[in-house]
Parts: sequence; structure tokens; C-alpha cells
Amino acid sequence: MSDPLKDERFMRRALELAQRAWGQTHPNPMVGAVIVEDGEIVAEGWHHAAGQAHAEIEAIRALGRKPADGAKIYVTLEPCSTCGRTGACTDAIIAAGFAAVVVGAQDPNPAHAGRGLAILREAGITVTSGVLAQECADLNLIFNHWITQNTPLIAAKMALTLDGKFAAASGHSRWVTGELARADVMRWRRYFPAIAVGANTVLHDNPSLTSRIGEQVWCPQRFVFDRSLKTLEPAQLPQIYSDAYAFNTVLLCAESAATELQARAARHDIEVWILPEVEGQLDWQAFRARCLEAEIYGVYVEVGPRLATRVIESALVDYLFIYQAPKLLADAAAPGLGSLRNTQHMHQAWTLQALRRAQFGEDHLTRGFLQK
Amino acid sequence: MSDPLKDERFMRRALELAQRAWGQTHPNPMVGAVIVEDGEIVAEGWHHAAGQAHAEIEAIRALGRKPADGAKIYVTLEPCSTCGRTGACTDAIIAAGFAAVVVGAQDPNPAHAGRGLAILREAGITVTSGVLAQECADLNLIFNHWITQNTPLIAAKMALTLDGKFAAASGHSRWVTGELARADVMRWRRYFPAIAVGANTVLHDNPSLTSRIGEQVWCPQRFVFDRSLKTLEPAQLPQIYSDAYAFNTVLLCAESAATELQARAARHDIEVWILPEVEGQLDWQAFRARCLEAEIYGVYVEVGPRLATRVIESALVDYLFIYQAPKLLADAAAPGLGSLRNTQHMHQAWTLQALRRAQFGEDHLTRGFLQK
Repeated sequence: MSDPLKDERFMRRALELAQRAWGQTHPNPMVGAVIVEDGEIVAEGWHHAAGQAHAEIEAIRALGRKPADGAKIYVTLEPCSTCGRTGACTDAIIAAGFAAVVVGAQDPNPAHAGRGLAILREAGITVTSGVLAQECADLNLIFNHWITQNTPLIAAKMALTLDGKFAAASGHSRWVTGELARADVMRWRRYFPAIAVGANTVLHDNPSLTSRIGEQVWCPQRFVFDRSLKTLEPAQLPQIYSDAYAFNTVLLCAESAATELQARAARHDIEVWILPEVEGQLDWQAFRARCLEAEIYGVYVEVGPRLATRVIESALVDYLFIYQAPKLLADAAAPGLGSLRNTQHMHQAWTLQALRRAQFGEDHLTRGFLQK
Repeated sequence: MSDPLKDERFMRRALELAQRAWGQTHPNPMVGAVIVEDGEIVAEGWHHAAGQAHAEIEAIRALGRKPADGAKIYVTLEPCSTCGRTGACTDAIIAAGFAAVVVGAQDPNPAHAGRGLAILREAGITVTSGVLAQECADLNLIFNHWITQNTPLIAAKMALTLDGKFAAASGHSRWVTGELARADVMRWRRYFPAIAVGANTVLHDNPSLTSRIGEQVWCPQRFVFDRSLKTLEPAQLPQIYSDAYAFNTVLLCAESAATELQARAARHDIEVWILPEVEGQLDWQAFRARCLEAEIYGVYVEVGPRLATRVIESALVDYLFIYQAPKLLADAAAPGLGSLRNTQHMHQAWTLQALRRAQFGEDHLTRGFLQK
């Protein structure tokens, strides 16, 4: 018999293991597994990176012997039933002789969902599924979105006051949120394969757009939305075009961008993607298609007030991360969200769905899918 | 020896008991007490209302006999050492022969703080203090503020979207927050001895300003900030001037209010407080003084965008309750907080101190003291 409390404890451990590969498994999901004999964890495994063994296989290898009678395996995601590069995990589980399999989230692919579980059940294995399902699914926001929607998950991140301001009226925006919230942003920069900002952010803040966690520095693919290539105008180029990760920077511009700036990009070996324009703005549908082509399935866009307004009003993004500090500017001149829509009803508001909330010191994060 | 985990468990029970008198003890604090013998609660008590026995006395009476050897009493607030209407609780505890006293919050009155504990210790009783201190103190926001600052706690409550909007651009504000958040507002209406709104709220919403919890209806003192008495202009008077609780409604106006409206108030037996004006606005310092005189130590102001802007910009309120729904209007035309201050730096933002956060369904409450 399954004990729900114990199942959750073991699944929580499998979740911890899965997260050891935080941001390292794209385009695959993060998955963790533990093998339990007689109520004790005897082996652990997790998926390290695409092309490497799945979590279940890692755990079975770590055990290094046949599981004992009655042994269970806990996996954060439904075991695959298709022969990928590494063989179907359902086959490996059946061959190893497990008595029971406990699963977190179902395979998000509607063509596969439940198939792995059915195969295991047909083989006479006791299957429990849905243990910490929400947390297990939440771990793979990017993978799940790509698999079900066939488009990258484009997320926007913003830091606001309680009254929805990005900055003081002067534009001064340092220290809206505190150190712990900023550390969480570093974690998400590590999670997403790509990060994007607007040209104004590059010109004003000259950011490195790397993820810095402890001593570890990681540079995701960096995108700059810069229709007219104005970030190439300064005599001293911003650091993202010249630092050690410059090869990871891509400028997104319109065909109409000045040819001398396009030439400057070429001279400095800066990669440029020329995108079509829609109503005088870069076409995000084309951007999504280019990302898909480049196998980039998640983009974390750090937005200021102008870009935030645009991505929300035109529903260009799928997901929002909104950090809020317990501060109030109470200044109508301070930049907030939105141009003049003249909404008539509160139900014309966008809402966040599949809400997740977290606390970082005094600051609060609300995240979820953007829905009209 | 004290066991911190058990101490917290018993203190939590005392806190629950204290809250049975939610909003009913003004001007006294809410206090709860439990008596523990051999690790079991054997008697409970709480302060029911001003003029009635303190929680410790209630618990001792409920026990109805001498406490057993080694008995402990848990109290959410430091026992009083002054002979009030009900005798010093420290005397009663010593006389009863308790071996130990466990206290939550210290007496907030700086003239008394720690004195009750010292008296008990001198009598040879083991005293532990600070168990769930924050929660025990938070229970008595109004009492603590009045005792330490000698002014009523004036709090403003607002319901906002994540981007800081009170309503759609049309003014439509229904359903910003959901049912659970609105139920929490009812709890706070019951907590505060008085509730206040601006004239516009009365004219637009014709609210009852009562607290409705289950079948229970409670009407606090109701204040309307209505400098020019415009809420008395409609042929059909708003319900707060004519319902069963009309005797609880006070209009706050300026001397300059039209005499025919003042006469109308008199004809309808509506109480009016005439306040001085400062820069064309009602003088809140005078309002505070009148409240103090009337022994009203807490006012819960439900603000719309205009009043919210005023009370924050001029720091008229001490405390804020900000409910936020996971919605975005992204409309610069929708009413938010603040006139044009043209802030230069983020550190010119107001902050909330002694932050408390809570979740109500999908909505989030941030509350705390307003600090510049």
C-alpha cells in the first residue's frame, strides 16, 4: 500500500535531485528519481543534460544491482515509453523488476500522456501518479509549453512597487526590490536558455545579462530588441558586444536599421537577426519562429515600463514574473504599465493563471501565465 | 524546563482564545490565557470586553481550584501589575501559586513593559517571555499604537491590481479582488471601532459600511469625509443616514459647508463634526483629536484613488492594508495612486514596515505601517 505522506517525502527528494540540473537539460525536462526499498532511499538519479541518461536509468545504475523484492521507484515525470536516444524508461523499469512506480507529473505531451503509466500497469506494476504533481509540472514550464504549444515560452520579468511603478519619475529604478529578489532573478536567468532586453536597458544600464550565483557565472543566449540598432551608436560599445560571452549576443533589428550600423555589427562580429516589422515594431511572431528554428524554447525578457506595456498590451508574452517591493511612490509621474486603453470594465483586465507566489525577504513574487 | 515547541502550541491556543473577542475589547487589548498541568491544558480564559475580567483571571476562575504543583499559565500579553478595575493580574497569579508563567508579547506601554515579568520573577516564579511575541503583539495593533503614540491608529484599505489600479478607466471597480479578500475586509471592519469613507464612495456605491460575517451584522462607528456635505444633496439620502445604524454615522465637514445642508443634517438627526480646514482640506489632526476625545482609538478608512493619494502623500494614515488581485489593466488611463510628485529617487518611496502578508484565494494582502 502507498502511504501518501511518505510518497510526498520521497517525491520531494526526487524533485530536489531533478533541480541539480537546473537550466542544464534543455530541450529536455528536468527529472529526478529515487529507488526505495523497505521505506529507505537506496539509490538516486537525475537527468543531467540532453543526450545523457534519463533519471530512472541513472537511479537504476546507481543502485548497481537488482532491486529488492517490493522495491519502488519514484520519478518526478511519467517515464517515457518511446525509444529516444536512451531507450524507453518503461522497458528499463519493467526489466529491473520494480514492484511499484510512483510518478509526479504526467507526460505533458497529449500524444504520450498516460501511456507510460498504462504500459507499467500492464506489466503488473503498481502505479501511483499525481504525487506533488503541481510542483513536478511547474519544474518544467519551458518544456511543457514547447511540447504542448510548439512555441517557445516567452516570459517577461518586472520589478514594481505596490502601486505598479518601475522607477521614480526621474527614471531612477535601482533598489526597487532587494537582494533576495535579485538573487531569484539570477536563478531564473540560469533556468531560461535565453534572456532578452530592450535597447534602452542596454544603453542605460550596460548590463552583463549573465546569471551570477555564488561564484558561478553563466551566460545564456542574450537577445537585444533593437529595431534601429541604436545600441551600436555609442563610441564605446555596451559590454554585451565585447565581453567574454559576446558570441552569445544576438541583436534583433528591422531591415530598415541604418546600413552603417549593420556594417558596424558585422565589423565587430556581432550576430544580427533581421526581423520583419508589424506596425513599426519588430514582429514577435517572426522572433518566436526564429527561436524555434534555433531550438531556443524559453526566453526571459527583462522589461522596463515601455517594453512591458507593449508585451502585455499586445499579448506578446506567455508568462509573467512580477516582483513587488513593499513600497509606494504615489507619483502619477513615475513610469508604470500601460498606455491609454480606456478600459470600461475590470473584467477587461489581464489575469495571471496557474499562479505561483513566493516571498524573497520583504519582496513578493507573483508569477503565472498571462490570459486575457 | 520549558519546551519551546510545546510553549508555542499552548500559546497558539491562547491566541485563538484571545481572538474570540475580536473587535470587542476596545479600548483594551485582546488577551488569551491557558493553564497547563502536566503538559495538558486544564483551563482556558480570555478577556471578553473592557470592564470584564482579564484573561488570566478568567482562566483561574475556569479552573475553579488551586492549580496543581508545577502548573503553568500561558498569557498572550504580559500580565498587568497595576490595579485597574479588576485588580493586578500579577497578584492573582502569585496568589494562585503558579510555578511558571509563559508570556507572548510584552506590555507595549514603555512605563510598564517588563514590570509584570519582574514582579513575577521576584515572587520566585519561572518566567518565559517572547513566545510567538510577534503574533501576540500583532493582535493588538490598535491598542499598542494608542498606548505608545497617544493617537488613534488610522489605517487605509485599498484593493488594487498588480499594476496599482483601483478601477478600469471608466471608474468600474467591482471585482478587483475576490470573495475571500472581501471576507477578510469584513473581519477588519469588525476589528476596528470605526470605519471611514470619502463622500464619493457614499455617492457612488451607497455602501452599508457594516461588517457582515456569516449571519452576524455589526455596525462600527461610521465616518464620512465630506467637506461640503455633498452626500446630503441627493433627494434620496444614502442608506448610512437612514438605516437601523444611522445613529452610528458621523459626517465630517468644514465650517464652510452650505448652511442648508447643515440644516438638513439636523433635520434628519445626522451627527456632524465640524472640522477646521488646512489648505482647503479637512484637518486630519483635528479629526484625530476628536477621535481621541470620543475614545475611538482605531479608524479603518476604505479609500478610493483620490482619498488614497491624499492620505499617502500627506502621510495622514499610520497603517495600510493593500489587497492585490493577480490582474493587470495596463492602462495609463485607469485610476492609480498619486498626483504628480516627480520623484527623483526610489528611496523617496514610502515603505511598509512591520510587514504582514496573507493570501486570500488568488489575492494577496500586504499590510504594515506607512513610513517615509
